[in-house]
Amino acid sequence: MIPENLSKQLAFIKEIDKLKYIQRRTKLFNSDRCENSAEHSWHLALMAMVLSEHANESVDLLKVIKMVLIHDIVEIDAGDTFLYDMQKNHDNTDEERMAAARIFGMLPENIAQELLDIWEEFEAGNTAEAKFARAMDRLEPLLQNSSNNGGTWHEPEVNYQKVHAKKSVIKDGAADIWTYAESLINEGVVKGFLKK
Amino acid sequence: MIPENLSKQLAFIKEIDKLKYIQRRTKLFNSDRCENSAEHSWHLALMAMVLSEHANESVDLLKVIKMVLIHDIVEIDAGDTFLYDMQKNHDNTDEERMAAARIFGMLPENIAQELLDIWEEFEAGNTAEAKFARAMDRLEPLLQNSSNNGGTWHEPEVNYQKVHAKKSVIKDGAADIWTYAESLINEGVVKGFLKK
Repeated sequence: MIPENLSKQLAFIKEIDKLKYIQRRTKLFNSDRCENSAEHSWHLALMAMVLSEHANESVDLLKVIKMVLIHDIVEIDAGDTFLYDMQKNHDNTDEERMAAARIFGMLPENIAQELLDIWEEFEAGNTAEAKFARAMDRLEPLLQNSSNNGGTWHEPEVNYQKVHAKKSVIKDGAADIWTYAESLINEGVVKGFLKK
Repeated sequence: MIPENLSKQLAFIKEIDKLKYIQRRTKLFNSDRCENSAEHSWHLALMAMVLSEHANESVDLLKVIKMVLIHDIVEIDAGDTFLYDMQKNHDNTDEERMAAARIFGMLPENIAQELLDIWEEFEAGNTAEAKFARAMDRLEPLLQNSSNNGGTWHEPEVNYQKVHAKKSVIKDGAADIWTYAESLINEGVVKGFLKK
């Protein structure tokens, strides 16, 4: 007999393997291969670990790491939404809420509730931890595009104004990283990767 | 001008993207696609998060998560070693030590030293955190093989005795998970996935 908690935890662990099949639009650094949401989440956690000194406010690093590790798990049901998608709502949609309830709900109740709360906190973006976690989430594809000849900046729906507006969220989490990020966006225009 | 620390941190962040190209021998759950070491590391971090109540001793979860997130980064230089490889040494090799010094050494000194220490602690496997982290590292491919018609258990160099010996490390980190893991190994024999 497997203890009930362990049985639920193992079912969740198996379920989230599916995040490795969710393809993002952005490509790896210096590569033509699309990144998947599991390796993206790993990268954000490492970024949070090594960049936390730049957070505007002192952050609970464990919570930030949990946030970025789980922030995309809802995509297993709801799919990935391109940051510049004009059809699809980027706010916490009903579809994503149902996904969170189903997938985190596979866990024992106390852990399920903790992860749901952390996911909602990330989505709301109001706390120091959520702001810094969101800064990481916006920074990684910017670094990838910048080192990848513009990457998704060449997509028809993307331009300087939209990139600048979407990425300025970085400022709320880490102002000095935003100064650098802004210089990369401007460089993208100069290099012809991004139309103004 | 980019601040010196940020410049080093960004170089590291770009460098570790290469972990997404390191193919492990083990395949994803219910799949023919090999897992890469970045998504594997993400999965271990999630496992540590939801399974920590089963650790034999109380653990510092932040440290465990950092351990599993970075434990394979040395593979960028040293490559992945199959658990049942008979030619290659599995202990902390000179090649891996050089890789750790080079890659973590890209970071500002205080973070570099912290990650080197955590990596060495994981490799040595003596602390509560290292034992639990190593249990996660051994458990994930076992779950994958078990749900994947045996997976790498069919490789010529693998048999029940070797699997049982290598996986028994799980017991040192989480005894009740080992009870379950052992039942999966025995089931593998019954189903003909693993020769005795």
